[in-house]
Amino acid sequence: MQIKDRIEALRTLMKEWGWSAAVTVGSDPHSSEYTPLRWCQREFISGFTGSAGVVVVTADHAGLWTDSRYYIQAAGQLQGTGIELHKVSTPDSVMWADWIGQNLPQNGVVGVDGTCISAGEVSYLEGQIAARHGRVESKADYLEALWPDRPLMPQGAIWLHEEQFSGRSTAQKLSWLRAQAAEKGCSNTLVSCLDQVAWLLNIRSNDVAYCPFVISYAVVEPARVILFADARKASTEVIAALAKDSIEIRPYNSVAQYISAMSSDGGIMVDPASLNYELSKAVADRFGKDKTVCCASPIDLEKALKNPVEQEGFRKAYVRDGIAQTRFFHWLEDSVASGQKLTEWQVSEKMHELRAQDPDFLDESFDTISAYGKNAALPHYETIKGQDATLEPHGLYLIDSGAHYRFGTTDITRTVPLGPLTELERQDYTLVMKAMIDLSRAIFPVGTPGCRLDAVSRRPLWQTMRNFGHGTGHGVGNVLSVHEGPQTIRQNMKDQAVEPGMITSNEPGLYREGEHGIRHENMILCVPAGENEFGSWLQFETLTMTYYDTTPLVKDLLDRDERQWLNDFNRRVAETICPHLSEDDAQWLRNKTKPI
Amino acid sequence: MQIKDRIEALRTLMKEWGWSAAVTVGSDPHSSEYTPLRWCQREFISGFTGSAGVVVVTADHAGLWTDSRYYIQAAGQLQGTGIELHKVSTPDSVMWADWIGQNLPQNGVVGVDGTCISAGEVSYLEGQIAARHGRVESKADYLEALWPDRPLMPQGAIWLHEEQFSGRSTAQKLSWLRAQAAEKGCSNTLVSCLDQVAWLLNIRSNDVAYCPFVISYAVVEPARVILFADARKASTEVIAALAKDSIEIRPYNSVAQYISAMSSDGGIMVDPASLNYELSKAVADRFGKDKTVCCASPIDLEKALKNPVEQEGFRKAYVRDGIAQTRFFHWLEDSVASGQKLTEWQVSEKMHELRAQDPDFLDESFDTISAYGKNAALPHYETIKGQDATLEPHGLYLIDSGAHYRFGTTDITRTVPLGPLTELERQDYTLVMKAMIDLSRAIFPVGTPGCRLDAVSRRPLWQTMRNFGHGTGHGVGNVLSVHEGPQTIRQNMKDQAVEPGMITSNEPGLYREGEHGIRHENMILCVPAGENEFGSWLQFETLTMTYYDTTPLVKDLLDRDERQWLNDFNRRVAETICPHLSEDDAQWLRNKTKPI
Repeated sequence: MQIKDRIEALRTLMKEWGWSAAVTVGSDPHSSEYTPLRWCQREFISGFTGSAGVVVVTADHAGLWTDSRYYIQAAGQLQGTGIELHKVSTPDSVMWADWIGQNLPQNGVVGVDGTCISAGEVSYLEGQIAARHGRVESKADYLEALWPDRPLMPQGAIWLHEEQFSGRSTAQKLSWLRAQAAEKGCSNTLVSCLDQVAWLLNIRSNDVAYCPFVISYAVVEPARVILFADARKASTEVIAALAKDSIEIRPYNSVAQYISAMSSDGGIMVDPASLNYELSKAVADRFGKDKTVCCASPIDLEKALKNPVEQEGFRKAYVRDGIAQTRFFHWLEDSVASGQKLTEWQVSEKMHELRAQDPDFLDESFDTISAYGKNAALPHYETIKGQDATLEPHGLYLIDSGAHYRFGTTDITRTVPLGPLTELERQDYTLVMKAMIDLSRAIFPVGTPGCRLDAVSRRPLWQTMRNFGHGTGHGVGNVLSVHEGPQTIRQNMKDQAVEPGMITSNEPGLYREGEHGIRHENMILCVPAGENEFGSWLQFETLTMTYYDTTPLVKDLLDRDERQWLNDFNRRVAETICPHLSEDDAQWLRNKTKPI
Repeated sequence: MQIKDRIEALRTLMKEWGWSAAVTVGSDPHSSEYTPLRWCQREFISGFTGSAGVVVVTADHAGLWTDSRYYIQAAGQLQGTGIELHKVSTPDSVMWADWIGQNLPQNGVVGVDGTCISAGEVSYLEGQIAARHGRVESKADYLEALWPDRPLMPQGAIWLHEEQFSGRSTAQKLSWLRAQAAEKGCSNTLVSCLDQVAWLLNIRSNDVAYCPFVISYAVVEPARVILFADARKASTEVIAALAKDSIEIRPYNSVAQYISAMSSDGGIMVDPASLNYELSKAVADRFGKDKTVCCASPIDLEKALKNPVEQEGFRKAYVRDGIAQTRFFHWLEDSVASGQKLTEWQVSEKMHELRAQDPDFLDESFDTISAYGKNAALPHYETIKGQDATLEPHGLYLIDSGAHYRFGTTDITRTVPLGPLTELERQDYTLVMKAMIDLSRAIFPVGTPGCRLDAVSRRPLWQTMRNFGHGTGHGVGNVLSVHEGPQTIRQNMKDQAVEPGMITSNEPGLYREGEHGIRHENMILCVPAGENEFGSWLQFETLTMTYYDTTPLVKDLLDRDERQWLNDFNRRVAETICPHLSEDDAQWLRNKTKPI
């Protein structure tokens, strides 16, 4: 069925159901960053593959609302579908809910899949349609009838993230969470965010690409935990291990029903950020306002504060990554020098192959960005086989990649010269290096939020009127999501301090459309730096163990301390990685890491 | 009458009025930074002279709540008064309103002077006493009966701040404000903050020490303005000039009554930050919730964006200050070298004398901080005649002073060596200089809030685990308050961007208790720096024209760009100031400003 036929078929259903408008938000029931295929409903109904957007269908209009990142892509993908592109964040743009408010007939019904939209979005929509006495009706999976080949629920096996890697037993984590809930006067907690369930119960699976979560919810009660998931994914050993901590598995889809039958006496703690509308209704109906504590889940911060076992796991993961990456860059340099015609895709495959040789490698942690020349000017460039560029022996090549190892997760970007560079490429390369180094060697008082550290990192770029549009750093989960909070090092004002134990990326960049793109990304662990009469101090330990190429540097732009930091870093990388390399690779790395 | 007799007399009155507790907050009716003597009620009832604190008197308890800045001072001043010191911001501290809530008898009445307490404070208090069915009763000036020699209303003459200095006529400002109110659906605006009235109507007086405000309110209506002030302070010329803009003067104390008689049709815009409880009640009674727009006054931001005439006035003011300061530092150096025994007070008198010689000098803009050696380690040191230290020919001397000239206001701190310094003094001196320079030469994108610039400034101190407890920068009014908002460059997260036209101090410091204190303070004007593919950029123009002494610098700690900035600055100072000096002074300044 073509997209426009799907839209027509939906309109027929809408007539049957008495809906004036149908909304497809496109998220999964847990507001996950990566949506499992089963829940790619926005793509199914519109053909649009971007990561953000809302589709609204009425009897005489179909529209997709998306932001500037996707204007070009959406315009292409919507061609011939009859769906109109609504650009958001333009001065005159009308948001989708407001648009419905303006176009809904009196007493009109707006249909949503309440399992895949947040309570906040529905509440805003209700406000917009109140003047026309409209109402919202939720029908879970309402597109299913049009979608015979809809992907099934993910079926990845559940495995245990052992204590030797998590550093904290499930029993300890549960007792901590119960104490947190008790502090807020609750006996029960509904955990609805996938990486929070995985962290809390020390379980993993391959349900979601790159994100080793189990599609599930957990209800933590005083004496037991109900894990709502597909029990077929759990082996007898896993079930037995969970049972030791009084964790029972029940069907994934029974969570709302379960909540409706709970005793409301003890109250419940929920996090609205990951709670879908249907579940939010179930909680409200059962527990009411008085017995529901809505707050940011305490798991978010606790999960970000890596314990010593986890820190050691990350260090090890970066050594493994450093070994694979050294081999990779040596191979790349030789291949390009010998005149081979490699494409971005082939090169990223090689990176994958070298990483996957590691016995503890589990999966990549996100889609590798393998970008040559002007392609690297797109910070979120998608390397597509067949549409990818061929590397040439000049200019800069950028590769942003990462992996989950059993004991930690990596995310690293290097930008390397493939031959002669322009003066502007060298300057940009050096200034981004300064930004990366200045954050690496920052010392700061306890309590400093990320937005202040972001300014410290950007300063060398700002001084030459350069800047980049993305954040400088995001948290990284331990065999969980490669992007996690609550800390960020970025422009946005957010109070959350960068605290000891947090592992955050350090990835300033610079992008010149049609020319080149540069990003230097390490991972940094926040550690104490000491105390004195002026207070308590923090600093960063750099975990990444992949060398930086110094040949493109305009040395005069680096100050003495920055040069020192870089020499120390490269020396430490060579000392750590060389023993794991062939003599040929080791010799190459020693040469690459000579002090400047 | 001694303090304890005043407390007893108050208790007698309280019995008469049926009050269980009496609260004295100690602010004036406009929440001003400096309280005119008439409203120093907290000092009258307690003897405590600090700038923050609340006194609560009940039948069997009298307490002063104040913060850590004043623990020592309060303990001394409360001796023998029977008033107990309640330290706030200690872990177990109970705030004054909460304390009342815990100690009030059932149905008790808490008395306040509703003209000198904010509506927000009363509302919080009401919440605390609700459980005991307590209520708040307001009696304006309730201490007056005990205070026969209470200072009268300030009687400073009103003068016009002419358009050649303000750069914008009263008519233009009024029409701008009316448009602002109209945008929020209001025909009327109540201006309750003293510097806002002064700015809006281009009037000044000497009612408040250092702050050339007129004690007044203004109600701006569509066709006229009512200025609530003492008409005796206005000359015939001033009255005539105001009348041209349809500004009428009515008695200061009639404002609440006037508001109660206004037509509520057009609604009213008010700023709760400077609205006292009585007036807030009058507005609420007359206009109700629907017709009252409570918001931060738009005057605050508008006033901070100095127009070209004001910018030029500030530049001129700093030249005048630079002339006086050069003479001062030359005199100081010679006097100390010749073995004269000068005290901090005498030295500050000399500074005053040299500034006051300027024909356009109006007043100082705040209490001069003249601090030698370890006294300078107190950032808000008060130089008291007779209790002040004598300068010796070694160590560092700090002077933080400023003036109102007819065309602009100054605030400047210099720390100078009086002879040999310790290595630590030299290091600290240099690192604070780095912090000051790094902010001076910062380039940053449009929209950058002050808390991010603050991090850029502190970075050189942080890198050596040094820090200071005050903000890096505050706005400065044009012949108004030397501290004004809305922008700040400090630790606190505040969204307000630093915008072109804003004049802000740049004053990092370093304080070592019992040893020395250093602060380097210039005034910086935000100006455009250009536009490019990365956005629009801003930078600072330094307005201050007083040289920096380079002899204490540990030159190796300054990087090339910082040294260059300092040499350029000192060269520009010498070029600008020397032509106004005697040959002797000029020669001395040329010598002081030699490049390093």
